[in-house]
Amino acid sequence: MSTLAELIEDLVTANRILATQGIVDSFGHVSIRHPDNPKRYLLSRSRAPERVETGDIMEFTLEGDPVDAKGRKPYLERFIHGAAYEMRPDVMSCIHNHSPGVIPFGITGRKMKPVMHMCATIGHEVPIWDQHKKFGDTDLLVTSMAMGRDLAKTLGKGRTSLMRGHGAVVVGAELRATVYTAVYLELNAKLQMQAESMSKKVKFLTKGETQKVAATTSMANINRAWENWCRKADRPFRDIQ
Amino acid sequence: MSTLAELIEDLVTANRILATQGIVDSFGHVSIRHPDNPKRYLLSRSRAPERVETGDIMEFTLEGDPVDAKGRKPYLERFIHGAAYEMRPDVMSCIHNHSPGVIPFGITGRKMKPVMHMCATIGHEVPIWDQHKKFGDTDLLVTSMAMGRDLAKTLGKGRTSLMRGHGAVVVGAELRATVYTAVYLELNAKLQMQAESMSKKVKFLTKGETQKVAATTSMANINRAWENWCRKADRPFRDIQ
Amino acid sequence: MSTLAELIEDLVTANRILATQGIVDSFGHVSIRHPDNPKRYLLSRSRAPERVETGDIMEFTLEGDPVDAKGRKPYLERFIHGAAYEMRPDVMSCIHNHSPGVIPFGITGRKMKPVMHMCATIGHEVPIWDQHKKFGDTDLLVTSMAMGRDLAKTLGKGRTSLMRGHGAVVVGAELRATVYTAVYLELNAKLQMQAESMSKKVKFLTKGETQKVAATTSMANINRAWENWCRKADRPFRDIQ
Amino acid sequence: MSTLAELIEDLVTANRILATQGIVDSFGHVSIRHPDNPKRYLLSRSRAPERVETGDIMEFTLEGDPVDAKGRKPYLERFIHGAAYEMRPDVMSCIHNHSPGVIPFGITGRKMKPVMHMCATIGHEVPIWDQHKKFGDTDLLVTSMAMGRDLAKTLGKGRTSLMRGHGAVVVGAELRATVYTAVYLELNAKLQMQAESMSKKVKFLTKGETQKVAATTSMANINRAWENWCRKADRPFRDIQ
Repeated sequence: MSTLAELIEDLVTANRILATQGIVDSFGHVSIRHPDNPKRYLLSRSRAPERVETGDIMEFTLEGDPVDAKGRKPYLERFIHGAAYEMRPDVMSCIHNHSPGVIPFGITGRKMKPVMHMCATIGHEVPIWDQHKKFGDTDLLVTSMAMGRDLAKTLGKGRTSLMRGHGAVVVGAELRATVYTAVYLELNAKLQMQAESMSKKVKFLTKGETQKVAATTSMANINRAWENWCRKADRPFRDIQ
Repeated sequence: MSTLAELIEDLVTANRILATQGIVDSFGHVSIRHPDNPKRYLLSRSRAPERVETGDIMEFTLEGDPVDAKGRKPYLERFIHGAAYEMRPDVMSCIHNHSPGVIPFGITGRKMKPVMHMCATIGHEVPIWDQHKKFGDTDLLVTSMAMGRDLAKTLGKGRTSLMRGHGAVVVGAELRATVYTAVYLELNAKLQMQAESMSKKVKFLTKGETQKVAATTSMANINRAWENWCRKADRPFRDIQ
Repeated sequence: MSTLAELIEDLVTANRILATQGIVDSFGHVSIRHPDNPKRYLLSRSRAPERVETGDIMEFTLEGDPVDAKGRKPYLERFIHGAAYEMRPDVMSCIHNHSPGVIPFGITGRKMKPVMHMCATIGHEVPIWDQHKKFGDTDLLVTSMAMGRDLAKTLGKGRTSLMRGHGAVVVGAELRATVYTAVYLELNAKLQMQAESMSKKVKFLTKGETQKVAATTSMANINRAWENWCRKADRPFRDIQ
Repeated sequence: MSTLAELIEDLVTANRILATQGIVDSFGHVSIRHPDNPKRYLLSRSRAPERVETGDIMEFTLEGDPVDAKGRKPYLERFIHGAAYEMRPDVMSCIHNHSPGVIPFGITGRKMKPVMHMCATIGHEVPIWDQHKKFGDTDLLVTSMAMGRDLAKTLGKGRTSLMRGHGAVVVGAELRATVYTAVYLELNAKLQMQAESMSKKVKFLTKGETQKVAATTSMANINRAWENWCRKADRPFRDIQ
């Protein structure tokens, strides 16, 4: 089992990886549920992911209250994370990002579906949440638990949801696997766009294939990528196999 | 309040950031209105933005005359800046650039509109200025106050205008916010192109959403990006919150 | 003649080049047939290509059994390599990759054909293998000799085959030439996509041109690229002309 | 006036710039006419441009014979350069490259025309040379003076010509200006592709605008880019204004 300190280092690493892999720019965030207290989660103070350091990681209640802020300013949209942890006991990690590939899908309503095996963990079809439906004209930020819960409802039992005119949310049972899904959600977006511009008869993964890939995507597999991403982000690699 | 020396360092940093973020290549420029004299502005001598140093920053009258050139050669198109400052007392910073995404919009007449929350500061609809209409066949450069004023008229009360076959101009009430708008104008261009190639029914931000996002885009938000961009441009970060 | 130790160093270099040239990400692999024993091949343990070191290179029988694993875990899909070496005595090197350009072709059924001289070594028309036809719903991985042999049958006498929803396989009579083909297969994919989006009348290389280019692509040519790629991958260049 | 040694250093720099700016990959080459003997030109031995050093620069007769090879192997396609210098006394520098943007135009027959002011030096309309017309099935390389002269004929009085299924040739009255044209030929290709996919009514530069921009593109302008490109290519900048 990983210690809390090790998990926090992993969370810092996840921030750096998401930045170096182009999944977040100066915005977007990644959290983990507290390993010792399922009613808490850990998330950086309001800072660009590529700059996040150990001392930036704050603890929050599921409602988004900082446990001990020490003067650190939290992300306005932390409610995305709390609402996902609240509704989904299986979720141990959550990412919110605005990677460029997912935006065109969210604003056209085009359904994203996995086009290659590595992208199967995004789920057979990615739902789209439109904040406008329930909340009308807003600044498009998820700034309350009511909004976070509405988004979590669209997420449902899945691992991914797009957010119209905003970005995406990705959840998972483990931090590294969640990063993996976020990286390949972006790749799937780019590949699907290209394929659909070439042909109206794109062969997506079948439902059976999607399930089989998701079932055989092992931590060994994910760690192969994680080791590589750590080096590219200039972070130490901790093997957890 | 920032000192003049601090603002000049920020202006050098803005040059480097615009280059490392791909908003300018070897051409394009960024200026600020002089903090102590609204009839003057500060702009580099004619040099690629990624190479600009403190000693390159020159002072100009709004008509574009160098106050003390010291042998430094100014940009031919400095009139873009002066005309914007002249017409718009609220404008404190101005960027002229040719980032690749904006060109196709300028030459097709396709209207750019914000597709995601971070791009809302570009305004609800970006106008296009065509130098040819008033000035006929030119070398497409803005080489006089007459041309600069005509461009400023198209800009109107907004923050952005495209220039057909040339690039864009971006203005703002603060240097860092202006850089932010220029970065996300380029992103919006790329995302809108992709979305419109996928569907004829793209959901842009509503007018209400655009206004709300613009209203809640705080200096804290912009500084989160600015800190990140400074590090990527190998420049010191000065916190002004 | 190159020694075994030199070939293993070249194989490590090939891994690094494929990563730095964007042909593999954290996944994909490259092998060579054992120079002294045609019934054996050399392939890294299960690791991201950019991280592969000399000590990672394992020896396998054509059926995919490690000769002396020393605790190292092999790639699940090593059967792609063994089956190619088994069926094609002329093949001395094999690459399996998922570079982004090839995916849209595999899932649309669009035939890839060479669009420029440097891409002629991919062959006049690239076949597509769909694992689903013979094996139904799988996790899309090539995890048995039966699957590997079926893929090798689609490859036939050629140098390349796409794999629907998965990637590609590239083979050759020499390691560096195989890397060259994999690099230009990816470039061809991108260029063909763009050209076919511009016009329905794309002029591909004629069959005669394809054959002539393939015939005159010398090791001197390939080494010009290899030297350059070595430097970019921070690996020593060994001249074998 | 620049000395021969200075011009050779500039030629090495041009090789590095073309590589770092993505205009050549491991292939492609750039030459200058000999400053003291118009019947000779200077070109690297057969080597990837990013690796070219001073000692690689060879002298050739216009027919392509090395004056003093010293065991160095020349490029097979040096006849592109010699034929251009032979036919066009005004040409002092020549580039042959395969940058990705130009390929789709060459193979679709779509006419490239300048879309923005910085691209005006490519000329009002870029011709396309198809080696197949006169020479039938070849390996698509320009391996004789007959081929080089046929290409030069298509180039005519212009600065650029595409080569179907192969690449492009760019000539100019000065090395730095020729590099400038090659860089912006590639940019024009990308922008025109995007614009034409958005609309059938793209506003290209008028003939008058093209001529005016070409007339006002000064060495000062080109040197602004050259200084920047030198730094990016890690080469010293020599100011020649």
